[in-house]
Amino acid sequence: MSADHPGILIALPGNEALSQSLADQLGWTTAPLAYRRFPDGESYLRIDADLKDRSVVLVATLNDPDARIPALLFAADLARDLGASRLGLVCPYLCYMRQDQRFRPGEALTSKTFARWLSAHFDWLVTVDPHLHRYASLDEIYTLESEVPASAPAIADWIKTSLDRPVLIGPDGESEQWIQAVAEIGNWPWRVFEKKRHGDREVDMRLPELDAIVDRQPVLIDDIISSGTTIAEATRHLCAAGLPAPVVIGIHGLHDERSRQTLNQAGVQRLVCTNSIANPDAAIDLSSLLVAPIRRLAGV
Amino acid sequence: MSADHPGILIALPGNEALSQSLADQLGWTTAPLAYRRFPDGESYLRIDADLKDRSVVLVATLNDPDARIPALLFAADLARDLGASRLGLVCPYLCYMRQDQRFRPGEALTSKTFARWLSAHFDWLVTVDPHLHRYASLDEIYTLESEVPASAPAIADWIKTSLDRPVLIGPDGESEQWIQAVAEIGNWPWRVFEKKRHGDREVDMRLPELDAIVDRQPVLIDDIISSGTTIAEATRHLCAAGLPAPVVIGIHGLHDERSRQTLNQAGVQRLVCTNSIANPDAAIDLSSLLVAPIRRLAGV
Repeated sequence: MSADHPGILIALPGNEALSQSLADQLGWTTAPLAYRRFPDGESYLRIDADLKDRSVVLVATLNDPDARIPALLFAADLARDLGASRLGLVCPYLCYMRQDQRFRPGEALTSKTFARWLSAHFDWLVTVDPHLHRYASLDEIYTLESEVPASAPAIADWIKTSLDRPVLIGPDGESEQWIQAVAEIGNWPWRVFEKKRHGDREVDMRLPELDAIVDRQPVLIDDIISSGTTIAEATRHLCAAGLPAPVVIGIHGLHDERSRQTLNQAGVQRLVCTNSIANPDAAIDLSSLLVAPIRRLAGV
Repeated sequence: MSADHPGILIALPGNEALSQSLADQLGWTTAPLAYRRFPDGESYLRIDADLKDRSVVLVATLNDPDARIPALLFAADLARDLGASRLGLVCPYLCYMRQDQRFRPGEALTSKTFARWLSAHFDWLVTVDPHLHRYASLDEIYTLESEVPASAPAIADWIKTSLDRPVLIGPDGESEQWIQAVAEIGNWPWRVFEKKRHGDREVDMRLPELDAIVDRQPVLIDDIISSGTTIAEATRHLCAAGLPAPVVIGIHGLHDERSRQTLNQAGVQRLVCTNSIANPDAAIDLSSLLVAPIRRLAGV
């Protein structure tokens, strides 16, 4: 770390609080990005700071991504143009990770294309728990350097201070990776719903070894809360089995008010998310997990 | 032109009518683009056609550009991925041409960045009357091949069939290029407002040789109609000078209902635009002007 020339953090609109928190923890400075939209819908950007030969970090989470992507890439190009010697992106929620396979011929593999765009504009990327399903790591599609700190320590901290006798429950097999990581930290029991097929279409959800956990507080954990239907279905199963109303923890809260209602109606006791996306349920702060990866990749 | 393998036109959402009109005039086929937004705001795209070794043309005008840019670039990448041997963009209104200079230090030169994005995704571009102000041609910032047919012949046709004894008037010096091109076709008189400074701030608009045109139908022409304030001011000057209420022709109609009211209140008799952007005032069809440039650049 160079004390004379620390890194400079620049927040895209809506990411100012996280950027300032990171600056405080890193001992770095922030620079303001003046951003507005012209009446014709074009983006105007200005950075009022000397970036020459500096290590610069843009902070931009990427929920609801399409309208944000041009401004982000314009800001990246501007930072380079103003002389940034190294350019990174802190993107707590990384978009376009879900379309990782052609389910029908002719479909766009947007995950690959988006990875190319970011890789062409940035030297490095820090994101939290990207939706790695069919890809084993970001390196399969990203050519920039990346670190992907897990949210598990922050989630485990929150559970420790907020809940008694938790049992962690994943709504499907995909969620096992997140559940297991949190459970190992707290040494808590965990279960994952299994799907059992009847005939061609009917699918039953089933939670194994239910008897051993009926007196515990169920905590449903998933990486992305969006429409809420998967979590709602799991909640109904838990309630029908006689378990207490579950607490739901989403790593990335992409949900809106309608999804929140779906969860409430299904019997969810409380919904909590990390602050990878700013929303009223973001009670779990990830910023301390980002500090070390940022310092390593920024090279200052 | 290869009759066995003509080009394939693919419309981005909202550009289907222009794409079909071009296909009819070129004797080419169109292919559908399935497009929708996922609940999380990501774009889904699918092209149901065999593009292998074909010359493919995306049709996408770019008003209100930011939300459209990701889908356009995803579609371009998809067309390449599906085997397109040559890929062009027909973009009647080309966005991000106005920010061509740093008026304050630290401003983003979005025109250059956007030009790089399009140049990285397409082999060629056809657009109509791009806003070339400080750039002499697209080649200063675009590295792809381009042709920029002028709308003047289509505008002159409309004036010939719709108006008697027109005099073409430009609201400012920048508009002279468009005015002169149309005036030469119809051999009509034309004038351009001059700005005269009083002291430091006050600016007067002045139309030279007014007496010779007072019995003619004024036709105000500008390349972009957006807020409408420039045209409204010119209209008030014309009306104050005793000329008939002007007809306004905008090449690219970026205006909304509020701008339309501004023009009405200033005394505009009628507003007409080309169909570079689909809106209720788009009475001047540009498609026939695009056919020859597309054929040349598509190479089929």
